[in-house]
Amino acid sequence: MKISKGLFPTLRDAPSDAEVISHKLLVRAGMIRKVTSGIYEFLPLGYKALRKVEEIIRDELTKAGCQEVNLPHMVPSELWQQSGRWEKYGKELLRIKDRGDREYCFGPTHEEVICDLVSHTVSSYKALPLNLFQIQTKFRDEIRPRFGLMRGREFLMKDGYSFHGTEEDLDREYDLMFQTYHNIFKRCGLEARAVDADTGSIGGSSSHEFMVLAETGEDQIAVCESCEYAANTEKATYRHKILEKHTAESMADIETPGMKDIESVSKFLKIKPQQMIKTLIYKADDSFVIVCLSGNRSVSDIKLGNAVPANEIRMATDEEVFDLTGVPVGYLGPVGLTEIIQSKNPKAKFKILYDQSILEIEDAATGANKKDYHKVHVSVSRDLSLREDHEHQALVNVAEVVAGDACPKCDSGSIKLIRGIEVGHIFKLGTRYSKPMKVNFLNKDGKDGPMIMGTYGIGVGRTLASSIEQNHDDKGIIWPLGLAPYAVHVITLDQNEQIDKLVQDIENHCSSQNLEILWDDRDDRAGVKFNDADLMGMPLQVVIGKRGLDKGEIEYKVRATGEKGNLRLETLVEGLSEIISQLK
Amino acid sequence: MKISKGLFPTLRDAPSDAEVISHKLLVRAGMIRKVTSGIYEFLPLGYKALRKVEEIIRDELTKAGCQEVNLPHMVPSELWQQSGRWEKYGKELLRIKDRGDREYCFGPTHEEVICDLVSHTVSSYKALPLNLFQIQTKFRDEIRPRFGLMRGREFLMKDGYSFHGTEEDLDREYDLMFQTYHNIFKRCGLEARAVDADTGSIGGSSSHEFMVLAETGEDQIAVCESCEYAANTEKATYRHKILEKHTAESMADIETPGMKDIESVSKFLKIKPQQMIKTLIYKADDSFVIVCLSGNRSVSDIKLGNAVPANEIRMATDEEVFDLTGVPVGYLGPVGLTEIIQSKNPKAKFKILYDQSILEIEDAATGANKKDYHKVHVSVSRDLSLREDHEHQALVNVAEVVAGDACPKCDSGSIKLIRGIEVGHIFKLGTRYSKPMKVNFLNKDGKDGPMIMGTYGIGVGRTLASSIEQNHDDKGIIWPLGLAPYAVHVITLDQNEQIDKLVQDIENHCSSQNLEILWDDRDDRAGVKFNDADLMGMPLQVVIGKRGLDKGEIEYKVRATGEKGNLRLETLVEGLSEIISQLK
Repeated sequence: MKISKGLFPTLRDAPSDAEVISHKLLVRAGMIRKVTSGIYEFLPLGYKALRKVEEIIRDELTKAGCQEVNLPHMVPSELWQQSGRWEKYGKELLRIKDRGDREYCFGPTHEEVICDLVSHTVSSYKALPLNLFQIQTKFRDEIRPRFGLMRGREFLMKDGYSFHGTEEDLDREYDLMFQTYHNIFKRCGLEARAVDADTGSIGGSSSHEFMVLAETGEDQIAVCESCEYAANTEKATYRHKILEKHTAESMADIETPGMKDIESVSKFLKIKPQQMIKTLIYKADDSFVIVCLSGNRSVSDIKLGNAVPANEIRMATDEEVFDLTGVPVGYLGPVGLTEIIQSKNPKAKFKILYDQSILEIEDAATGANKKDYHKVHVSVSRDLSLREDHEHQALVNVAEVVAGDACPKCDSGSIKLIRGIEVGHIFKLGTRYSKPMKVNFLNKDGKDGPMIMGTYGIGVGRTLASSIEQNHDDKGIIWPLGLAPYAVHVITLDQNEQIDKLVQDIENHCSSQNLEILWDDRDDRAGVKFNDADLMGMPLQVVIGKRGLDKGEIEYKVRATGEKGNLRLETLVEGLSEIISQLK
Repeated sequence: MKISKGLFPTLRDAPSDAEVISHKLLVRAGMIRKVTSGIYEFLPLGYKALRKVEEIIRDELTKAGCQEVNLPHMVPSELWQQSGRWEKYGKELLRIKDRGDREYCFGPTHEEVICDLVSHTVSSYKALPLNLFQIQTKFRDEIRPRFGLMRGREFLMKDGYSFHGTEEDLDREYDLMFQTYHNIFKRCGLEARAVDADTGSIGGSSSHEFMVLAETGEDQIAVCESCEYAANTEKATYRHKILEKHTAESMADIETPGMKDIESVSKFLKIKPQQMIKTLIYKADDSFVIVCLSGNRSVSDIKLGNAVPANEIRMATDEEVFDLTGVPVGYLGPVGLTEIIQSKNPKAKFKILYDQSILEIEDAATGANKKDYHKVHVSVSRDLSLREDHEHQALVNVAEVVAGDACPKCDSGSIKLIRGIEVGHIFKLGTRYSKPMKVNFLNKDGKDGPMIMGTYGIGVGRTLASSIEQNHDDKGIIWPLGLAPYAVHVITLDQNEQIDKLVQDIENHCSSQNLEILWDDRDDRAGVKFNDADLMGMPLQVVIGKRGLDKGEIEYKVRATGEKGNLRLETLVEGLSEIISQLK
């Protein structure tokens, strides 16, 4: 493809609303363009790359025995009413009425539609399992679209759904998809990790997110430095240290005037934050939940939600805390707290949750439950009554991991916190949709029951953008060979028949290997062409000019490594083959 | 692909709302399924076929130098306001408001969006020409969706747009697209014809529709039996006969009581309908237009619209006719009509259009302009004043062709009327969109002006359905090789290792030729499997059973011809190769 014959509008400057590097570079390289907030169009170069991702996904899923379908974008409201999502789903759902005043949504996911299809076409265990997918534009009216292709309102997604007769069969397929997803992201040239994820309100039994590791990622992940363990920071666990004994020194109150946070108190007491017990009060419906945890940790909302059965959990206000305890925020501590609350508010419903992290503190400091005082030399085993089953107390695990924690899976590793971008998600749905949508089948014994489902998604555009987040430098994109719109970027500095013939030779050679070339044939300055080539990021650059040809050679540069060299004309094809074989 | 492992739900009966054969067979063969009126989902077999059409289109357009883009489905109303279509487009346009109350439409075509893209990325003649296309779901809220994939509310379309600096360059590209479309439909195994089409209200300069010939087609086309001439019946022309002279007999009035139409009068007078002059009165805004044409022809609305400059043209009511002429409908004729109107309504605005077809009548009969009388022996040259440029008269060409008319293009051929399905449309748009959307460029001389545009569409699902309309029998679909989801349908009647091995051999051989096989491995009756194979319509069927294997052979059937034969196991691969090479 000649650049002069196509639409390749590179830009010197990134758009002012671009916050992340993939957004900046996709726009600058002339691959995408914003039509309106959260809605982008793909230009030829961008669409070529997007289709590479699409084809890799299609190929791997087909190999794994999945079949491709194509479900409508416009979904009748009746189907969503049946699943219960029509009422529940908020403003993110784009709803529309047709000329006959019938309601539809533009599907953000297609559980309802696929259930409708399968319930009408499959009725026996003989036709199971089934794994159907589609690659399709999805719609989500995000309140704050941002980061270019990362969070748009219209975006390309692969969504897949599997149907099974037994839990065991779902487990088998889930493992197959787990492996298939790894294969897909590997072929896309991405370093990705499967992360144990929360099953959230959908209530399935198991779920993994696939994260592309990138400093700019929105999500934080806890990974083990030694083994494969990886989990969302909010869900990650760690192995607790077992202490031989706690301090034998006697507790004492120390005046800490105006010091209301961990940082200032620990500094004043000359101890580490992890030697302090932090005390936080939450309101869970009409009860109070008091969480005591190590001073260097945060409460995981997900873990707290799992530990406390309530419709709504929120931090208590300063007023609520004072009304409950008579202690101003900043001076709370677990020692004697149950009695303080009971004497001040005999009818208050409350529970103190001791997070396991406090068991690791040998000699603890904490609030003294009076203004401007903290307690030191608290022995958790001596001074707190950690009874497992008590009306007002429980020992729980609600704290987030921190860097350096011991891996919960292997013996030797420690936890590292890294950032990532979620590009895929697999999920054991169970019967969440098949029950209300009546996706039933007859099993071998002639008994009727709902099918068991799995669901599997990949953000196609997001995968493309993630690749740039992971592979770029200050000059532009560095495409892995698997996603590169063109494998070779040929730059000609002069025009004559010999040069045209050489480009043709290169094109023929590449096309015999199913690789395409992009040819910058423009009558423009060499510097402009070099900059554009670096910006667009094809894996191999080949530069042909009279000066080199006089010496019988043409120049090449490997975009990823910057490695430069010359190819002799006599052995052009062999030379090209060798360099191309080394590209990744 | 094993049928037992996938979703292949064939049906015995067609859905009750299916009127055309493609709709019936697509549903029965388990290829599509209705979600709601005009909205279908593609099952695996159907989607595989759809993607074959898509890939052929993509491949041929790429070869022709077009580039693929992907524009958003959700189009901000501002763009449509700029082109003027936001107000004009009726209820077929699906409009939606987002959470911020901003308006969008779900694009039925994308002239506005592509203009917006090109106007922001191209500014010089150097970057022209450009030809950009996309293959994308389109939305049109049809008042009466029908015929399955033929007229849906959500459908896959290829839409392309070209941009040029000169009219000549558009002409060149238009010819290229004309040829490319022929190549596409040929590769799809379709007999299609390019038909000269009306440019309608958009007002471009030239337009062709590509029609797949099929008895069930909605459109009627006039084609030459000898040459390539083809046109919409409404737009088709024909070569007029030149008569030496008209009748010398004297006109006479004949009583024709109660005979008000061509059929009864011509029967009564024992003449052919084409020997009569039919007289029809239209209201064109505030004027009357009287059309006189041969009795066997109809007025073409399109030609009449082109001949009469008016905002609205409609048939006059019986009352209006009587008020104007004093003659009841059924007895009107051109002889003396001007004078009759002028004496009855001196201020009436009217014009008599003599269609050229009446020049071909040697001895004409027509209404006598009085109740229950017709005139015979009318000589057009003697009794009518056919002046080319007259306040109240004109000689025009507003009649439709009829079968047997002489071809306007070649010397020998005559016109045949056939039915077809519009699958593609190419159109010289000129500056209809580039002007209001300000798609400007600087030409070589540094002068600014709007680009000149062409637009090129293909209905992808409609092409698929048309193929079935053209290729089927009473047992089911007959896929041309180019569109067949699988090339070979293997039916195994028994189960053992030898058979599995044979299927594997066939699969390996096919896959070396980039062909896929579908394997009916179900534990079901042979008759069911044969019927399903005929219904699904793969080009080649191969039947493997113990009985044949004992004789050292397997059976095959070519779906299109019904030709059956046996393949010897010793020469299986050679035999297969030969049959496959003969498939079309």
